[in-house]
Amino acid sequence: MKEYVLLIACPDQIGIINKTTSVLLKSEFNIIENKEYVDKESKTFFMRTLVVGDGIKNNIEKKIQKLKLNEHFLLWKEKKTPNILIMASDEYHCLGDLLVRNQQKDLNANVLSVISQKDTLRQFTEQFNIPFHQISSKEISREEHENKINQVLENYNYDYIVTAKYMRIFTKKFSELHKNKLINIHHSFLPSFKGYDPYEQAFNRGVKIIGATSHFINENLDEGPIISQKILPVNQEWSIDEMKKQGRQAEISALNEALDLVFNDRVFVFKNKTIIL
Amino acid sequence: MKEYVLLIACPDQIGIINKTTSVLLKSEFNIIENKEYVDKESKTFFMRTLVVGDGIKNNIEKKIQKLKLNEHFLLWKEKKTPNILIMASDEYHCLGDLLVRNQQKDLNANVLSVISQKDTLRQFTEQFNIPFHQISSKEISREEHENKINQVLENYNYDYIVTAKYMRIFTKKFSELHKNKLINIHHSFLPSFKGYDPYEQAFNRGVKIIGATSHFINENLDEGPIISQKILPVNQEWSIDEMKKQGRQAEISALNEALDLVFNDRVFVFKNKTIIL
Amino acid sequence: MKEYVLLIACPDQIGIINKTTSVLLKSEFNIIENKEYVDKESKTFFMRTLVVGDGIKNNIEKKIQKLKLNEHFLLWKEKKTPNILIMASDEYHCLGDLLVRNQQKDLNANVLSVISQKDTLRQFTEQFNIPFHQISSKEISREEHENKINQVLENYNYDYIVTAKYMRIFTKKFSELHKNKLINIHHSFLPSFKGYDPYEQAFNRGVKIIGATSHFINENLDEGPIISQKILPVNQEWSIDEMKKQGRQAEISALNEALDLVFNDRVFVFKNKTIIL
Amino acid sequence: MKEYVLLIACPDQIGIINKTTSVLLKSEFNIIENKEYVDKESKTFFMRTLVVGDGIKNNIEKKIQKLKLNEHFLLWKEKKTPNILIMASDEYHCLGDLLVRNQQKDLNANVLSVISQKDTLRQFTEQFNIPFHQISSKEISREEHENKINQVLENYNYDYIVTAKYMRIFTKKFSELHKNKLINIHHSFLPSFKGYDPYEQAFNRGVKIIGATSHFINENLDEGPIISQKILPVNQEWSIDEMKKQGRQAEISALNEALDLVFNDRVFVFKNKTIIL
Repeated sequence: MKEYVLLIACPDQIGIINKTTSVLLKSEFNIIENKEYVDKESKTFFMRTLVVGDGIKNNIEKKIQKLKLNEHFLLWKEKKTPNILIMASDEYHCLGDLLVRNQQKDLNANVLSVISQKDTLRQFTEQFNIPFHQISSKEISREEHENKINQVLENYNYDYIVTAKYMRIFTKKFSELHKNKLINIHHSFLPSFKGYDPYEQAFNRGVKIIGATSHFINENLDEGPIISQKILPVNQEWSIDEMKKQGRQAEISALNEALDLVFNDRVFVFKNKTIIL
Repeated sequence: MKEYVLLIACPDQIGIINKTTSVLLKSEFNIIENKEYVDKESKTFFMRTLVVGDGIKNNIEKKIQKLKLNEHFLLWKEKKTPNILIMASDEYHCLGDLLVRNQQKDLNANVLSVISQKDTLRQFTEQFNIPFHQISSKEISREEHENKINQVLENYNYDYIVTAKYMRIFTKKFSELHKNKLINIHHSFLPSFKGYDPYEQAFNRGVKIIGATSHFINENLDEGPIISQKILPVNQEWSIDEMKKQGRQAEISALNEALDLVFNDRVFVFKNKTIIL
Repeated sequence: MKEYVLLIACPDQIGIINKTTSVLLKSEFNIIENKEYVDKESKTFFMRTLVVGDGIKNNIEKKIQKLKLNEHFLLWKEKKTPNILIMASDEYHCLGDLLVRNQQKDLNANVLSVISQKDTLRQFTEQFNIPFHQISSKEISREEHENKINQVLENYNYDYIVTAKYMRIFTKKFSELHKNKLINIHHSFLPSFKGYDPYEQAFNRGVKIIGATSHFINENLDEGPIISQKILPVNQEWSIDEMKKQGRQAEISALNEALDLVFNDRVFVFKNKTIIL
Repeated sequence: MKEYVLLIACPDQIGIINKTTSVLLKSEFNIIENKEYVDKESKTFFMRTLVVGDGIKNNIEKKIQKLKLNEHFLLWKEKKTPNILIMASDEYHCLGDLLVRNQQKDLNANVLSVISQKDTLRQFTEQFNIPFHQISSKEISREEHENKINQVLENYNYDYIVTAKYMRIFTKKFSELHKNKLINIHHSFLPSFKGYDPYEQAFNRGVKIIGATSHFINENLDEGPIISQKILPVNQEWSIDEMKKQGRQAEISALNEALDLVFNDRVFVFKNKTIIL
């Protein structure tokens, strides 16, 4: 039997759970997971419901709409394995983890291809039989480069783009075009140490713990909604290079957790924050 | 307006959430928190619902029973600050944390008194204006000692007994008499290092991380349902005594988390495990 | 037999360990702990040596100076329990932990008194038989207030001042007067969320992990050398107030670790960082 | 210039650091790292010294022996990248991490080949151009199987054997033959949950934190000296299979840390514990 996910965000009010579960029951679906969250400040209700069954799947959204919950967000979809594109640059570690798990059917996603402005990781990618597109950014404007990327993206039926240490800043236009589809891993414990060289910044500040943050990309650099964060204690004998090396595990781990949540439709974006259900 | 908690555990089946929320809505209560959990192995459904309102509070349990959910566990109660007794021995750190927070109205519980087989912490306790009962275990059997304790307990209208480093083993009889009311803190990351000298055991085994575990006491030593665990990395330069000292923060922290959960009626005991909602 | 600590920071060069240990051996001291650290960037050598013995203690510094190591920092002192003053405001939790451990002879320091601009924690402090000085900041300038504080400080023979949630900003003058003596606990994972309301900032940014930082106070707010940091994962159901409450354990824990290190003469300040030996 | 490592373990006594550094200085080596540890119980001194230089390298061990430190352990060696063999079974995750990092020249070791009783990971291994030996254990005794393994091992000039989820128990004979060369990753927080199915055991015990342990293999199953441990909090909604999947990051991470330490000659084995310098 097939599984479906229902996501709702609406103003908090009496009877939401009761009314929505009525719709699902009458449509002959059995609830196997149900989670709610209420943002108390804004009095907003969020719910993720996972159902199973051969019920009347086609008009669920309409039936929910008839409840007049005044929903901000409503999604009913069959649960399926998403297709993803990966954007990378020079660093192999997050990419490698994704490609190995993809090859081993263990990623909960299908990797369609890898895009990079550089050619560094071509051979590394292709050994896993994944297409690799180099789209050089040399001697062209940021906009021109992104246009070329968008042309390649159009050839793919993807659900998400994972920037696995892509190391370039997107324009506001690109960020907005792919809103809530771009998942980044940043190599610091945000909001500390945004930007280009977080390990250098962490080293110079003398922090005793470093971290990594996976987040949706928005129009402001390293300020999008945070999905997952991981930390590790600093050994004071680490040089900046050693810190970079040691931080990789946290980066891989934060990105994995974030992707796991997103691929399972567990992440709501709300007020530049994420709610995980 | 008053808050009430509804706790249900029953075989998983279609429509539970819908039916129970119907009862609450019709009785004019507004749901402010709702969490469910399904144990997939045994197909058991658990729900904690927090409601607010001036509804018809008296027959909720009966109305739920009429739903014929075949419930294992059903509790409807007004949410209130529990009364607790503390049992201690020589060590002040967990007791001190509880007494300070109790004095500062920050414990979510009222400490009624402290019981100990020793007199060590009498002055420490009494400076916080909390009664202290020494019940010596010298030259009497374990059963006789526990009988004396039970006599003292009878004078108090308590909800839980917190054994904050009490360092004595209870008989099966005592454990069963106070089932699900006895909350212990054990100074290891259970199930490693049960029994008398966990830090010595950890030191001798050369583990790189140590921990603390808060659990309900059952008839088997250090084998009751685990509520909370905390860990800390070991510094190899620590002696056993230094390890004991450093471990205190983890003990205080694990006990606090466990008490917070229990005092808020968030903990179900099931198959010697806890489910936290 | 008495214990002594030797601390040296000097340009890295061949033979430092050998030469300094020669001095100690010839003066009839036995080394029981020895740790070195080299800052590779600036080629600076740091060493902490703990010795025991009835040796010729008086001229050790001179003898080291004769080695012409060109030392930036040199300290030879008998290891002793430091005296501390605590500055607090409204919040009891860090203060309470310090006062309880002081009372139980378990702090590795002697608390001489508590100073506060408010009267909130007077009774709380005095129940532990520790003098409490209220020095109101009302209707006087920051400088005038600090002058009054300095007058009180003069009555005490203290080694360190612990600002345990003192919640006021010092002038540059005060910070410099008490340089390397003022140890603060800040309720965020610095450098994230400096200033007045870190939990509000963390809540609004939607971070998944929060923390606490203990650091020496310098002339820039929350920018002094970090000694210790602790973190805890955020439960998304926490309100700002709940976050504040849960964060206390991390604050207590970070402050304790920092004090433990400082009181044992393990902390060098270098380039606005700390080196822990 | 070349780097050399000096490792010493001997009874603690006055002047060890001074005497040994004298030998190194007179032989014209410059100390770049030096760490000591004293086991206070047994009064045993441990030191790891990293030196650089074109000094008189050949007789260092003899010169140290002349100091009559009565050393239990003495090693002087040029620092070099070790060669390793990997033993695996069905699970790709630790193996994959090692093979990717080996390919990217980022492992601090050279992987010579992979040995397995199964053929499952042949293609996975060979895509990285690493030889794969299947040595079936079917229908032969454990001793016969290990003899066959030893025959393959003889063809390689290896420093360590990494059992990356090899999932078979070695005989006492094999363990002793390869003493201090066999580095294992066990999928639990030892000493909890030894043996075959640690995640099942952890699930059934209801622990709130799980972990992974990397250790040297000795003659007792999962009881060898622990090198590194990592933990992760349990999400109660995880099934046993999900727990296994989530635990992989901790396994990879614990194994990496352990290998990093061993490959840098930082690990002493003493009294079934490790000392890390």
